[in-house]
Amino acid sequence: MTVPSFTGVITPVLTPFNDDLSVAEDLYLSHCARVLDAGSHFLAPFGTTGEATSVTIAERKRMLELLISENVAEPEQLIPGTGLCALDETVDLTRHAVELGCAAVMTLPPFYYVNASDEGLYRYFGMLIERCGDPGPRICLYHIPPMTRIGFSPELTARLAAAFPANIVAYKDSSGDFGHTEAVLRAAPAIAVFPGSEAFLLKGMKAGAAGCISATCNTNVANIRKVYDLMQAGDLAAAESADEEIRTFREAVQDAGLIPALKSINAFATGDRRWLNTRPPLLGANRATGRQFCEAYPFLLASLQAEGAS
Amino acid sequence: MTVPSFTGVITPVLTPFNDDLSVAEDLYLSHCARVLDAGSHFLAPFGTTGEATSVTIAERKRMLELLISENVAEPEQLIPGTGLCALDETVDLTRHAVELGCAAVMTLPPFYYVNASDEGLYRYFGMLIERCGDPGPRICLYHIPPMTRIGFSPELTARLAAAFPANIVAYKDSSGDFGHTEAVLRAAPAIAVFPGSEAFLLKGMKAGAAGCISATCNTNVANIRKVYDLMQAGDLAAAESADEEIRTFREAVQDAGLIPALKSINAFATGDRRWLNTRPPLLGANRATGRQFCEAYPFLLASLQAEGAS
Repeated sequence: MTVPSFTGVITPVLTPFNDDLSVAEDLYLSHCARVLDAGSHFLAPFGTTGEATSVTIAERKRMLELLISENVAEPEQLIPGTGLCALDETVDLTRHAVELGCAAVMTLPPFYYVNASDEGLYRYFGMLIERCGDPGPRICLYHIPPMTRIGFSPELTARLAAAFPANIVAYKDSSGDFGHTEAVLRAAPAIAVFPGSEAFLLKGMKAGAAGCISATCNTNVANIRKVYDLMQAGDLAAAESADEEIRTFREAVQDAGLIPALKSINAFATGDRRWLNTRPPLLGANRATGRQFCEAYPFLLASLQAEGAS
Repeated sequence: MTVPSFTGVITPVLTPFNDDLSVAEDLYLSHCARVLDAGSHFLAPFGTTGEATSVTIAERKRMLELLISENVAEPEQLIPGTGLCALDETVDLTRHAVELGCAAVMTLPPFYYVNASDEGLYRYFGMLIERCGDPGPRICLYHIPPMTRIGFSPELTARLAAAFPANIVAYKDSSGDFGHTEAVLRAAPAIAVFPGSEAFLLKGMKAGAAGCISATCNTNVANIRKVYDLMQAGDLAAAESADEEIRTFREAVQDAGLIPALKSINAFATGDRRWLNTRPPLLGANRATGRQFCEAYPFLLASLQAEGAS
């Protein structure tokens, strides 16, 4: 079995909703097409940025199937989120992704158990792999303690990677703590480690990280991809300069509340007001924020107005 | 529409698992029957104590249906947990419980969004009620910030109770903070407030609480019921004495890890080793702990060995 090389820039795609809060399928597909066209190596549907936990199992499966059947993405470009609280529901989503031929899955720990031990998480992931059967899943461990409190310690990651080398193939670090990223790189050198923000893309690649998985790729993937490509080409000076250009945008989006800010930008830039819809309890997208961003960062209009062209 | 008087002692029942970790249906039904026979006014299947978030939607529905079809419980005795992260899945479970005629549902906030605002939670619950349609659900707000971080502030509770008086009928306070319980009692006097532990049963009833919903009811409901009945009868001195008797057991179970400890006790007392099974990431039940408890608290053997008699 060949483990694909998970390297690159990965977009955890936003999930647009119609006014009745059903998934806006047309907008979802056109947005995914645009992000891929703009240089995203992979799409990660239904991560935190995609309001994953607010989307039902049935909806997640349907959108993944549509991405493929509508020829928006190849299965090899997809790394869907599959981590739910109940193991057998995580198995269900994971097996579905495997059957579709997805490149990998990105899996949260069972996040209700905020005091879960490493041993408990080890058993959960061991059972997940076992219950998926053959062929086994390729899992990107999704570490995001700001939301889940629990996560994958470097020790647990090393243990899982050693026990299941064909299955534990990557790690998304959304801790915001680069020291943690470095510890995981040291503990599990065989897996692909992705910082959860392009803020650590350059620094991460210097330390051996495989790229990044970042929310802002939804609006800025071409520029993030540029930093990645320059690093790959060994042009550190140019990479640092390009990195400097994306830094202030990233920080402004973060300060404005990430998901609502990104949806606000998409709403203003594309003119489709459905982008302002979020599923409760998430709130906060508005056109004024989108306008402010588009005025402050002219590249947004240029890149997002191509939306729907594909 | 008559709102039933939610008062009494409510057992958030444990979920036993077979060795393959499927739900041990026989054991579940016999355990529920025993708890009701021992004096529980209501059962709350699939709360935190029942490892709810580790149990699939399909399994939850099936067990609720079995409780009724096997004549273990009347629908009017059931207050199942229905709170998931995705609104439409919460609607699905809630509507199912309403259709079965359940007394109420006990609903967590959408717990992935640890920074959710009161406004976001208000909209979530408003949409839940609206989407359930007619007849509307009767909801016990399930406040358990040690697991979810977010919860129902007194202000939000008052706002929900005022906006949806037929639907927001109760509150389970598992914060462990009696000051919070008192604040909710003051803010929303029309709803039934249940401390999440019998540690606050007596104190709570003095302040206007409606009873308690407590994990230890799984092994000690008769003694907890005694405190409740004495308080109802106005015999404060006898209630205080009975309360003193249950205090040390409660504290010991809490110190031993609540759910694993309760499963350990059930395993030793009933002789059915399947009670030691938990779903990962939860671990920690073992027969030795059960033995220690049963030796230290002789009432356990007497009450639990009746298990399965019904």
